[in-house]
Amino acid sequence: MISQRLTKLLAAALVLIFHGVDAAAAQDPLPSWNDGATKQSIVDFVAKVTKEGSPDFVPPAERIATFDNDGTLWAEQPMYFQLLFAMHRVGVLAPEHPEWKELEPFASLLKGDVKGALAGGEPAIAEIIMVTHAGMTTDEFEKIVKDWITTAKHPITKRPILEMVYQPMVELLAYLRANNFKTFIVSGGGIEFMRPWTEQTYGIPPEQVVGSSIKTKFEMVDGKPALMRLPEINFIDDKTGKPVGINSHIGRRPIAAFGNSDGDRQMLEYTTAGTGARFGLLVHHDDAEREFAYGPESKIGTFSDGLMSEAKQSGWTVVSMKNDWKTIFVAGPAK
Amino acid sequence: MISQRLTKLLAAALVLIFHGVDAAAAQDPLPSWNDGATKQSIVDFVAKVTKEGSPDFVPPAERIATFDNDGTLWAEQPMYFQLLFAMHRVGVLAPEHPEWKELEPFASLLKGDVKGALAGGEPAIAEIIMVTHAGMTTDEFEKIVKDWITTAKHPITKRPILEMVYQPMVELLAYLRANNFKTFIVSGGGIEFMRPWTEQTYGIPPEQVVGSSIKTKFEMVDGKPALMRLPEINFIDDKTGKPVGINSHIGRRPIAAFGNSDGDRQMLEYTTAGTGARFGLLVHHDDAEREFAYGPESKIGTFSDGLMSEAKQSGWTVVSMKNDWKTIFVAGPAK
Repeated sequence: MISQRLTKLLAAALVLIFHGVDAAAAQDPLPSWNDGATKQSIVDFVAKVTKEGSPDFVPPAERIATFDNDGTLWAEQPMYFQLLFAMHRVGVLAPEHPEWKELEPFASLLKGDVKGALAGGEPAIAEIIMVTHAGMTTDEFEKIVKDWITTAKHPITKRPILEMVYQPMVELLAYLRANNFKTFIVSGGGIEFMRPWTEQTYGIPPEQVVGSSIKTKFEMVDGKPALMRLPEINFIDDKTGKPVGINSHIGRRPIAAFGNSDGDRQMLEYTTAGTGARFGLLVHHDDAEREFAYGPESKIGTFSDGLMSEAKQSGWTVVSMKNDWKTIFVAGPAK
Repeated sequence: MISQRLTKLLAAALVLIFHGVDAAAAQDPLPSWNDGATKQSIVDFVAKVTKEGSPDFVPPAERIATFDNDGTLWAEQPMYFQLLFAMHRVGVLAPEHPEWKELEPFASLLKGDVKGALAGGEPAIAEIIMVTHAGMTTDEFEKIVKDWITTAKHPITKRPILEMVYQPMVELLAYLRANNFKTFIVSGGGIEFMRPWTEQTYGIPPEQVVGSSIKTKFEMVDGKPALMRLPEINFIDDKTGKPVGINSHIGRRPIAAFGNSDGDRQMLEYTTAGTGARFGLLVHHDDAEREFAYGPESKIGTFSDGLMSEAKQSGWTVVSMKNDWKTIFVAGPAK
């Protein structure tokens, strides 16, 4: 018993020392967020669900927070970055496919005419994705993604693609985890396109990434067991698919969800309809100067007027990137 | 700097104190395992992958261990317990289905003739599963499972079903987690049949449970967003499906895998084929007195001669329940 008491005293001493050392940092876990109602709504929510004895207290195991990726954790303009990756792959694979010179959507792509290539709509995009994302093992695909993600540049800003990540959201993820939340990505993007870099970039390990997927098949490749990626859709993790993906991978209703578009609507609805304290947040892209402006007022994006009305009615927090974020992008890729 | 040094000293003091207090427990993290080659193979593997600087060292984030459930973590005789659950549900639902009195496989089931009901093979089992597992929301199904699992008794031993869990495996799970492994279930059983009780029973939260599933659909139920369970197979997490399920849910190749039947073969192959130190283990049911004997020598189970040969050839550990386990079942359900 004496040892246990001593242990508690020592633990308390450790806490005091750490607080002393890191007092400045502890004061503001969200330094890239301007003070105001938006930031306060986050801090208030975290305070109430983590306060033991509070009627809103949520045990750590149930502190599940889900984040959309494109437009929520990193930029998505002028097009989803996974599409940039696919187009890069088309260029790499073109020498093996001389027929692509005459075959849409590849012919346009190879001439640099992205708009022409995408004129074929979803079937054209699906064809590009299948050709560039299937036909190799999962291990090989992981390497392909890693090679691209560490060298790709954004077509407009020319910054490394991993510097198109939002600094305030990286802070928010870390803040939630420091409060014993488990953070997940729930994205319409490809699950295996994200997993190779989400741990280093966001602190989110592969097993906490939910996304769209193609089918894989167990087979022997060079005498070794491997998973071959097949050109066949397995699951689309968007819109009504997001709650389905959450249930499939997490098996618990989140208590907080973060998105930026109509594709996230059902995830926020599903999350905030649960009992007890809940939190929904939408990132509003309204900063043409520092990023891109394509909110509901622009009529060009995927954040509809209807979603904005629903956000207001449901008490979801709407982040104005222009007003709420001191900094937009990370200073450099996570090391 | 002085504070940091002091902190380290205090931390070291804490470690010494804890070791002093818990010396007896620390000596043997696997008290229900008899000493011998089997137990030693587990301890040796854990020692080498956790020893910093060792050529076999594996960083904590990559210490993924996957466990089959039926026959590996709890018993599976005289039939999978999920089938006991389904049969119970048929009885509960029977008053709403007068037609079942004349309709197989339900007619036989209702007369208590399990063998007759299962004579229809897989289609009959699928029909029983669909009728009993679909048509309600995921929240409702969770409650149904919880109600059953906390009251059901084993048909032969008459023990509560959650006392049919193997004590040595519960210790093994805790031992791995104490060494910073992340433990997952990868079972042919229903993912949503397991999740309501795996956290309390095995210390494995819902998001670390991989299993077979039916499709779900997002819809409004009584004006609230919910997921409705559909009578349609989504994924079978067995045999070649296990590596597929692992990749889908975990996104990393495990470094250790634990099973007990031919359904686990590909999971062990996939796991142990990775680079670096790997560990495969199969539970051999050879204890007719304390449990059930249905290993390869019995020719009645799902652990084939071929699997035993492969285990020997691949250096997988084979647990003799008779010789390696001091105790078989937990003393009571986890509180």
